[in-house]
Amino acid sequence: MQAARLHRYDPSIPTESLQVEQVEEPKIENPFDVIVRVGAAGLCRTDIHVVEGQWAPIQDADGSLLPYILGHENSGWVEEVGSAVTNVQPGDTVICHPLMTCGLCHYCRAGRDMQCVNGAFPGISQDGGFAQLLRTSARSVVKLDPVLQPKDIAALADAGLTAHHAVRKSVPELYAGTNAVVIGAGGLGHIGIQCLRAMTPTNIIVVDPNEEALELAKEWGADETVQVREGYSDQVIEMTNGGAEVVFDYVGERGAEDEAWKMTRPAGFHYVIGYGGTVNVPTIDIISTERSVIGNLVGTYNDLEELMNLTARGLVKLHTATYPLDAVNDAIQDLNTGKLRGRGILVPEGAEA
Amino acid sequence: MQAARLHRYDPSIPTESLQVEQVEEPKIENPFDVIVRVGAAGLCRTDIHVVEGQWAPIQDADGSLLPYILGHENSGWVEEVGSAVTNVQPGDTVICHPLMTCGLCHYCRAGRDMQCVNGAFPGISQDGGFAQLLRTSARSVVKLDPVLQPKDIAALADAGLTAHHAVRKSVPELYAGTNAVVIGAGGLGHIGIQCLRAMTPTNIIVVDPNEEALELAKEWGADETVQVREGYSDQVIEMTNGGAEVVFDYVGERGAEDEAWKMTRPAGFHYVIGYGGTVNVPTIDIISTERSVIGNLVGTYNDLEELMNLTARGLVKLHTATYPLDAVNDAIQDLNTGKLRGRGILVPEGAEA
Amino acid sequence: MQAARLHRYDPSIPTESLQVEQVEEPKIENPFDVIVRVGAAGLCRTDIHVVEGQWAPIQDADGSLLPYILGHENSGWVEEVGSAVTNVQPGDTVICHPLMTCGLCHYCRAGRDMQCVNGAFPGISQDGGFAQLLRTSARSVVKLDPVLQPKDIAALADAGLTAHHAVRKSVPELYAGTNAVVIGAGGLGHIGIQCLRAMTPTNIIVVDPNEEALELAKEWGADETVQVREGYSDQVIEMTNGGAEVVFDYVGERGAEDEAWKMTRPAGFHYVIGYGGTVNVPTIDIISTERSVIGNLVGTYNDLEELMNLTARGLVKLHTATYPLDAVNDAIQDLNTGKLRGRGILVPEGAEA
Amino acid sequence: MQAARLHRYDPSIPTESLQVEQVEEPKIENPFDVIVRVGAAGLCRTDIHVVEGQWAPIQDADGSLLPYILGHENSGWVEEVGSAVTNVQPGDTVICHPLMTCGLCHYCRAGRDMQCVNGAFPGISQDGGFAQLLRTSARSVVKLDPVLQPKDIAALADAGLTAHHAVRKSVPELYAGTNAVVIGAGGLGHIGIQCLRAMTPTNIIVVDPNEEALELAKEWGADETVQVREGYSDQVIEMTNGGAEVVFDYVGERGAEDEAWKMTRPAGFHYVIGYGGTVNVPTIDIISTERSVIGNLVGTYNDLEELMNLTARGLVKLHTATYPLDAVNDAIQDLNTGKLRGRGILVPEGAEA
Repeated sequence: MQAARLHRYDPSIPTESLQVEQVEEPKIENPFDVIVRVGAAGLCRTDIHVVEGQWAPIQDADGSLLPYILGHENSGWVEEVGSAVTNVQPGDTVICHPLMTCGLCHYCRAGRDMQCVNGAFPGISQDGGFAQLLRTSARSVVKLDPVLQPKDIAALADAGLTAHHAVRKSVPELYAGTNAVVIGAGGLGHIGIQCLRAMTPTNIIVVDPNEEALELAKEWGADETVQVREGYSDQVIEMTNGGAEVVFDYVGERGAEDEAWKMTRPAGFHYVIGYGGTVNVPTIDIISTERSVIGNLVGTYNDLEELMNLTARGLVKLHTATYPLDAVNDAIQDLNTGKLRGRGILVPEGAEA
Repeated sequence: MQAARLHRYDPSIPTESLQVEQVEEPKIENPFDVIVRVGAAGLCRTDIHVVEGQWAPIQDADGSLLPYILGHENSGWVEEVGSAVTNVQPGDTVICHPLMTCGLCHYCRAGRDMQCVNGAFPGISQDGGFAQLLRTSARSVVKLDPVLQPKDIAALADAGLTAHHAVRKSVPELYAGTNAVVIGAGGLGHIGIQCLRAMTPTNIIVVDPNEEALELAKEWGADETVQVREGYSDQVIEMTNGGAEVVFDYVGERGAEDEAWKMTRPAGFHYVIGYGGTVNVPTIDIISTERSVIGNLVGTYNDLEELMNLTARGLVKLHTATYPLDAVNDAIQDLNTGKLRGRGILVPEGAEA
Repeated sequence: MQAARLHRYDPSIPTESLQVEQVEEPKIENPFDVIVRVGAAGLCRTDIHVVEGQWAPIQDADGSLLPYILGHENSGWVEEVGSAVTNVQPGDTVICHPLMTCGLCHYCRAGRDMQCVNGAFPGISQDGGFAQLLRTSARSVVKLDPVLQPKDIAALADAGLTAHHAVRKSVPELYAGTNAVVIGAGGLGHIGIQCLRAMTPTNIIVVDPNEEALELAKEWGADETVQVREGYSDQVIEMTNGGAEVVFDYVGERGAEDEAWKMTRPAGFHYVIGYGGTVNVPTIDIISTERSVIGNLVGTYNDLEELMNLTARGLVKLHTATYPLDAVNDAIQDLNTGKLRGRGILVPEGAEA
Repeated sequence: MQAARLHRYDPSIPTESLQVEQVEEPKIENPFDVIVRVGAAGLCRTDIHVVEGQWAPIQDADGSLLPYILGHENSGWVEEVGSAVTNVQPGDTVICHPLMTCGLCHYCRAGRDMQCVNGAFPGISQDGGFAQLLRTSARSVVKLDPVLQPKDIAALADAGLTAHHAVRKSVPELYAGTNAVVIGAGGLGHIGIQCLRAMTPTNIIVVDPNEEALELAKEWGADETVQVREGYSDQVIEMTNGGAEVVFDYVGERGAEDEAWKMTRPAGFHYVIGYGGTVNVPTIDIISTERSVIGNLVGTYNDLEELMNLTARGLVKLHTATYPLDAVNDAIQDLNTGKLRGRGILVPEGAEA
């Protein structure tokens, strides 16, 4: 089958980062396995970090992973199922939760499956979805209404899910009269804004350096927008009379992580979602205001089901740009150079219709 | 009346830090005021920081506070009440919540009175309890069983309350099978341990450099103890098979704040209670493990009522050393030089019985 | 001043149920008192039950209450304040929380002020707002944007607040993919629907016998409607594939209370808000499905602030019919005979502008 | 193998209710199956209800179940595992969660596995553990410390789990200063009392008609006891100054369900655990006090793990009476006639050591 594989890490992100080639098809190995015919796969900034080798110490500790197929935001149709699979059958439209989880550990049973102690991560730690076929497990496929098209939703599998999960956790804090700040109206943020609008009555303030992004933010549901420039966080503190109950930092680097803390109101929560930088806060500031810093890791299977419900009802829409899978390297260059508007979606041969 | 006042900030903590002198008695100024005859007042490390001038920028921004009476951990008997006071009457034994709160703002009404936007702090921002009489408000006095003696409980008003509040917030996380780490078996930590024992079935691991303190920790309810030395956090991570669900950092400086984060399990919580240092964590560590850093600020009035309930039933006991109020400077020196064992308690003239 | 008073209980609800007469103006009695110039007062079915004498055993146990002024849904402008009042001043537009609470008891401090153990209820247990002036307390007035008009919002003080409180409690249960059933699209229900739409992404199903009311329900935000007729609850069970996660029973009598339980999904919640009937459920049904029956009592002061926020932003609108206060008996007859469309609002002399 | 099977329903509970006979051994049918060599199986009042035929309409709707093996409280050692089982291996000591769950549905993923929409119930809806071997699934076995003996813990699998689950849900309500009432100090209640003691600082009040049971209740951790006789609930209301925050009704019939509601404080919770009677409450009582009735259904797998942790640490102990499996009919008669003290435990041939 056609697949895009990484053969070597390269911090320069060369024009031929991945090799599009013919590889053997995945096989059912386990009674709970599911083979998915990929309809579309999202391209994520994490893919660039993988190419660079940033994740190698974690994903490839023993150096035996390469070559392998990237792609961790996958959607398509069930092709074949293992002998014990009962929840889907060939032909079903599905979106894939990014983690293959065990269903047996404490976390899987407690509704926190992203913390599964036996998880495997297709596209990160084993072959992923930049291919015609993907092997995953029965526990990781969400069955969809057949009217949904993989290319319209694939990127919700990880980017959308991550944006949603953070908002979902914050719901009890964001009652009427509160303020929520969203830092970054990009790939994650634009989903976060729509989720906030659908799930809470909070006043949504979006901050971003890009004016065009702020215009779009209003269409997605922002109540107010603030352009990132010198002193913008003071402006937000003034607008909110002391800061926001929850600040969602979808950037997590280049200073956003510092401003996020500043814009958080006493007794409020600074949600870390983007990454790259460092949170650096004196303990006296933490205790004298009772503010907290909250970690967020992708989202659970049930989060993904909820997000699919919002999508099917038109409450959340993805902004995308589609490429054929064999143009994956163009997509990577466009993403890396900032030319890509919306989320990049890769469509393998034969799935175009 | 007799009172111990601060006349000037001095980072050297001189042997005569405070001046014990005769001052005018406080008067009822407001229909909700309560004058308390002080039975005992706790001495706190924060008092030393006040003498040093560390808090001056916050408590005394306009430089008009001095001279003033310290003492923010107060207990005694009601002496006189304002015209609108209905909840106590002269003669009642009371412990004083450290903050005078308004009862009108969103936070007071939401059960988060430490965030009161109109609060005043006797002993910090106005005259406190190192004196024979103290002015506070009806909303800040907890009426006690008359068998309780002020000198046995005064230090619960702030140190104990702070230790309790953090434990109370963590209760939903600390079910059977979890681990809680308590950093520091001192003034706050020894109350925290007893609260954990009374309120949760978690496995309590106490870390402290002092062997004697660790022995006492076991009497207070610790299941396991670990002496602070090179590599101690790795030892805790191994004992807990990956870290604790909640780490209570009652120290907050000198490296404890770094080890606290390390000892926190994925999906777990690092509670900041002590202060002085800086929390410094890469955002990738936060998001890849979904760990959170939780601020804690003293405790609510209802927390104090709960703590008094535990105390009255013998589930929480304070370890104290008593001084007459006119020996306050000796107590300060003993605390500063590490000679004071247990919590220092000051008893004004006439309240000794 | 002008006031409408009840002089005797009468189950027949006579055409002159109340007597509109001149009475003495209320005076400041307490440093925390606030006198409000009533701009509008809502008429509630509870007022009819008071006239009938249904509440007499509770509100008037010693038989000394009559004559007194009804009216427990009040809004207007501050006329005069007691010596210790700091949160409002003469001229402020306010809506009155229906309960005068103490601010001192455990419940007031825990954010559950409707359970205040020292509460007084103007319009129920003492003079209310069917008058030109009303005495209440500083803790019970919510200061409003002066653009808000008392006649447009007065009925939110109790009916709206009750509808809101139940929805607010249910927020954590009503994530995307769930169903909520609202029984009764009347005075409370129409606010409940709007609150559900503003606060949750749940699928809202409204049931009511009246077709016109169901049409309006769709405008207020209902996703689906079901007319009450033989077997309607089976229809809802089928639509929801086994029942709703939360059923809001705004009726509470005439069989609604039985159908509400039936329409509640396993692990779901039957919220009781309306009253009159009896919940009657075999314990085996309760335990074999883990369903619960949840009581709801008006709402807290903070609930009212949140509802005012939703109203100011246009997310909640009241449907009203206005009468001059001296036509109060016509309004009572119209309500009792079903002629009143929307919530009846009484406007005293001089407040018409 | 040896097994005790039911051949016909008989409301008279005859002396030979079950037939102890040789039957075919269960086989692995599914890759996730686990065959357990039964070490001990608890006898439950539900077994008597099954013999009587009370559950037949639910468990045996099509009339094809008989003859089948009873026993839904099982513990033993893994004998054989299916091809995909990774969490246990032959020889492991295990206790069996009573429900075989799918791990795929919303509830299994949300930490509410007792609501599994695909669950099967050995001992109720298919062959259970009154036998030498039992077939269950990998998701239903909790691996234990090998020092634990099946006969000491088997009855925790259902009775203990049910008692625990209700207490576990109530933890956030039972802070210091609250009261909890436990109705019934029998098979479930005595575990409930120990769980309350281990998990909360509440004041525990136990009510039971039997004086000896009340004596034992104090050893298990009760703070106060009240003998059931005319007016006992008024006595509890007085002791608690208005009722308990949570009332655990482990009886659920013969009037307990009425007294439970009466003893519940305003804003409090009436937990239904036992069954047989009917909860019958006017809606005006529910709304005027904001009390709730909470259903409870057995417990989750994670609940069982937590209970095993408490047991291993000596915080929860079962009171048992052991019978060989071939004396199962004696045990049934003893239970039915009230002669059985503690929980009846059946030990099959060969598991006695």
